[in-house]
Amino acid sequence: MKVTNQHKAFGGQVKFIQHDSDATKTPMTFSVFEPEGIISGAIFWLSGLTCTEQNFITKAAALEAFSKHRLLLICPDTSPRGLSLPHEHADWDFGSGASFYVDALSDGYKDHYQMYRYISEELYALMIENYPIKNKVSIMGHSMGGHGALLMGLKNPGKFNSVSAFAPIVNPMQCPWGKKAFMGYLGEDRQAWLDYDACELIRQGKKHPNPILISQGTEDEFLESQLRPENFMKVCDEYQQPLNFEYQSGYDHSYYFISSFIQQHITFHQQYLV
Amino acid sequence: MKVTNQHKAFGGQVKFIQHDSDATKTPMTFSVFEPEGIISGAIFWLSGLTCTEQNFITKAAALEAFSKHRLLLICPDTSPRGLSLPHEHADWDFGSGASFYVDALSDGYKDHYQMYRYISEELYALMIENYPIKNKVSIMGHSMGGHGALLMGLKNPGKFNSVSAFAPIVNPMQCPWGKKAFMGYLGEDRQAWLDYDACELIRQGKKHPNPILISQGTEDEFLESQLRPENFMKVCDEYQQPLNFEYQSGYDHSYYFISSFIQQHITFHQQYLV
Repeated sequence: MKVTNQHKAFGGQVKFIQHDSDATKTPMTFSVFEPEGIISGAIFWLSGLTCTEQNFITKAAALEAFSKHRLLLICPDTSPRGLSLPHEHADWDFGSGASFYVDALSDGYKDHYQMYRYISEELYALMIENYPIKNKVSIMGHSMGGHGALLMGLKNPGKFNSVSAFAPIVNPMQCPWGKKAFMGYLGEDRQAWLDYDACELIRQGKKHPNPILISQGTEDEFLESQLRPENFMKVCDEYQQPLNFEYQSGYDHSYYFISSFIQQHITFHQQYLV
Repeated sequence: MKVTNQHKAFGGQVKFIQHDSDATKTPMTFSVFEPEGIISGAIFWLSGLTCTEQNFITKAAALEAFSKHRLLLICPDTSPRGLSLPHEHADWDFGSGASFYVDALSDGYKDHYQMYRYISEELYALMIENYPIKNKVSIMGHSMGGHGALLMGLKNPGKFNSVSAFAPIVNPMQCPWGKKAFMGYLGEDRQAWLDYDACELIRQGKKHPNPILISQGTEDEFLESQLRPENFMKVCDEYQQPLNFEYQSGYDHSYYFISSFIQQHITFHQQYLV
């Protein structure tokens, strides 16, 4: 692990770290906030389309709360970088910056876009090795990263104590962003898609023992077209997955929305990390 | 005034606003945060080199405190835009994004780079006209914007109830950034420079009745070469300008530093805005 940049913030340290990933076979970059004092737990943050390891740590106004609760923040990048795969850089909603946190099966992508494995196994293990956070790790994310947090948490309830999301893509098989990504990364066989769709995972009997917290702005520009939270509410209800779903009146899809409710999410996770 | 973008945040509204400026003879953009409820006062934020009206409002983690104290935040851009003056876009520390908040005297620039007048007169009047903040306005800034806040406050103590700065350029006549800017905007006659140098303004007898708050990181990469806060401490001491100067150990020049102490600055201003 090589620290490429470091800044003191709220008594702790923001670090930008680069390492060579086995899963993606590329260098990968992530950021952390290390609070001052004895670390009491960790929260992974998964970002949305077009983001990097920079967005959340600079724009979410979250570091004070991480500092106060002495929680480690871990922000992975949203895809491998520095490659030239087919169509990888053509669109903002596919390829670079848009991994959808799956383990790709398609030609070219399957060799590098192993982001599910990268986060839930490789980076997870690296963090446990380097920080005293064993059995005290939770996960949250936004939009595509909210989808990532839901699938990581539902598939690994023993690894992630709690799960929350802002404006998540809950049902990627049923929305344009998700269909495009799954077709490109997983191919035409829809059977493979079922592994990476939060609604389908619940239907398969996957469950998280703790309530999942979701915040959703009512003025979100992607609410109807891409997010469709009611699909997740319905399936959670049907399969008894505890869910705290909150509509927030007037908020959109931006970091202004995230920053307004991030303290609530951190406090939510904190109760499962003590 | 045309609202080009708007986001709900912490119960209030972030707005990006464009208007035609008399002072700069260009369209100018600024951002505001309008808190929910009855506005109790306002603080101008002046940004540093290369910044726009976006940086502070997205990266400073300040909106919660503005919301809590029901204060209006006003973030002007750092220069006129859309022009093609000589050398205007050649360097990051001169011209576009680097106005130094002076009223330029040099050919070409004098027709547009009237940022001192734009902020202290035109935008100030526009804000008073549009919000119930008369006699309840303070000012703060960072680096080049810290210099701007100091000179606006020292020259207009009746307009700005209190002044604070993060890592300000306190003595531009004596540092490379300032010399380059003043030469380019004001010309070779150093007499004109004295009007825009906080140390020189104090020497001329300018004074703010309330203490000036300055926060400075000890690991700031520009501390020795550009900022030289000891020059300001010395002259404030000599001329009895009240000054709360705080070194913050380990902090650098970034928004991570600003976000760590912005609440302290807002609380400081709030006591002079009630």
